[in-house]
Amino acid sequence: MNKVFIVGAGPGAEDLLTLRAARLLADKAEIVLTDELVSPEVLAMVRPQARVLRVGKRGGRLSTPQEFIHRLMVRYARQGRVVLRLKGGDPFVFGRGGEEVEALAAAGIEAEVVPGLTAGISVPAAIGIPVTHRAHTHGVTLVTATTGDGAGPDWAALSRSGTTLVIYMGLARLLNIAARLIAAGMPASMPAAAIASGTLSQQREVVSTLAELPARVAAEGLESPTLIVVGSVAALGQVRRTPLPLDAADIATCYVA
Amino acid sequence: MNKVFIVGAGPGAEDLLTLRAARLLADKAEIVLTDELVSPEVLAMVRPQARVLRVGKRGGRLSTPQEFIHRLMVRYARQGRVVLRLKGGDPFVFGRGGEEVEALAAAGIEAEVVPGLTAGISVPAAIGIPVTHRAHTHGVTLVTATTGDGAGPDWAALSRSGTTLVIYMGLARLLNIAARLIAAGMPASMPAAAIASGTLSQQREVVSTLAELPARVAAEGLESPTLIVVGSVAALGQVRRTPLPLDAADIATCYVA
Repeated sequence: MNKVFIVGAGPGAEDLLTLRAARLLADKAEIVLTDELVSPEVLAMVRPQARVLRVGKRGGRLSTPQEFIHRLMVRYARQGRVVLRLKGGDPFVFGRGGEEVEALAAAGIEAEVVPGLTAGISVPAAIGIPVTHRAHTHGVTLVTATTGDGAGPDWAALSRSGTTLVIYMGLARLLNIAARLIAAGMPASMPAAAIASGTLSQQREVVSTLAELPARVAAEGLESPTLIVVGSVAALGQVRRTPLPLDAADIATCYVA
Repeated sequence: MNKVFIVGAGPGAEDLLTLRAARLLADKAEIVLTDELVSPEVLAMVRPQARVLRVGKRGGRLSTPQEFIHRLMVRYARQGRVVLRLKGGDPFVFGRGGEEVEALAAAGIEAEVVPGLTAGISVPAAIGIPVTHRAHTHGVTLVTATTGDGAGPDWAALSRSGTTLVIYMGLARLLNIAARLIAAGMPASMPAAAIASGTLSQQREVVSTLAELPARVAAEGLESPTLIVVGSVAALGQVRRTPLPLDAADIATCYVA
């Protein structure tokens, strides 16, 4: 066999898998190496004969070193097993899919990438936010708050790009990100939204402004994985929960306290 | 019923549909209003009882006015039919899905958006390009070359953002876009790729540099829909066709002539 499938599991809901991914999971997989971000709903689709190994990574928690994941993929592929590397979202959008393809190539093993719905587009859609819209913007930037070198992206250039910004892994740095964007000239009143566990039953969302979003997110207690959307399209987002009966000043106080 | 499903058909290959979209097409659809960009492979999945209406738009060709599409959706929904508005890629990425949701809301009709794989991520993946990669960039910008106001995006700001640029509908303006990006300080040697009919059997691709891409694309005769990728990750793209035996100077001559 000597081929590894690197498969995107999408944002969470099991019927947002692609047909290609679903068939591989249900009919072909022998070894499944799965991330933490893959939902239980998707894992329930894996054929019972397959062996599922959790090799998750989550910011700040105990995780499996990337090199160990590479070794596992290579070992099982060399045994002739059908190996599925299952990743939340899309393997090539902040999923380290590129690194895994390179590690496999270095070991002489072919990789086949099966794309998945990235959270950055499908999760805003779940609350009614189109990441692009002719009346609002000509584009969308998907960006991670934590860069390889630790420096973080150029928030000023991103602000000037005029695109909707969708920020992955930004929850812990949200106050800093909002401040940087406002310092770069983005209006404090720019619509902004945060969505936790998007497309799943436990989904929670906040729609606010750039200036107020950090306090609102803290007050509502949103947890990782949470996606941040900044741009005028965010105003189209619809919150289905009853909003808290606090005004912005109260919430800011709670947050700072 | 009074609900319209706005469904993303993905990049082309039928097994890159989501399970949710496939079930709607195969089991529920009564009226399907489809774009030109939806592939025959996907349309073949529509249940035979459904009526399929082609309401395509293609740059520069005869197309159906957006308002007429809105009226059709409203009319069939009011008749109690299960209406699927089927769009290439994702409805909310340059798909006018946002406008259609608003038109339906104005008519008192609920819309349910089913996301699809956007070409901007899944088509580069089909030739091995990860749009993000820790060793290359912290993000990706999906941008359309043709903006609502005709002015085009701020190529200088996009260049400075440091993200991979994925340009939709850029084929006709490729020479101008490359010149603008280079004028903004992007190296002429920046890797760049163009992929036509991505994920389908007729897929064709060019991997080159920003300066040489327009001539290479012209020499190879790539046609719409063609996606452009600019950024160091483009160098990871793999062309499966035999390259033309012309050097860059020859091709530039052909193009200008």
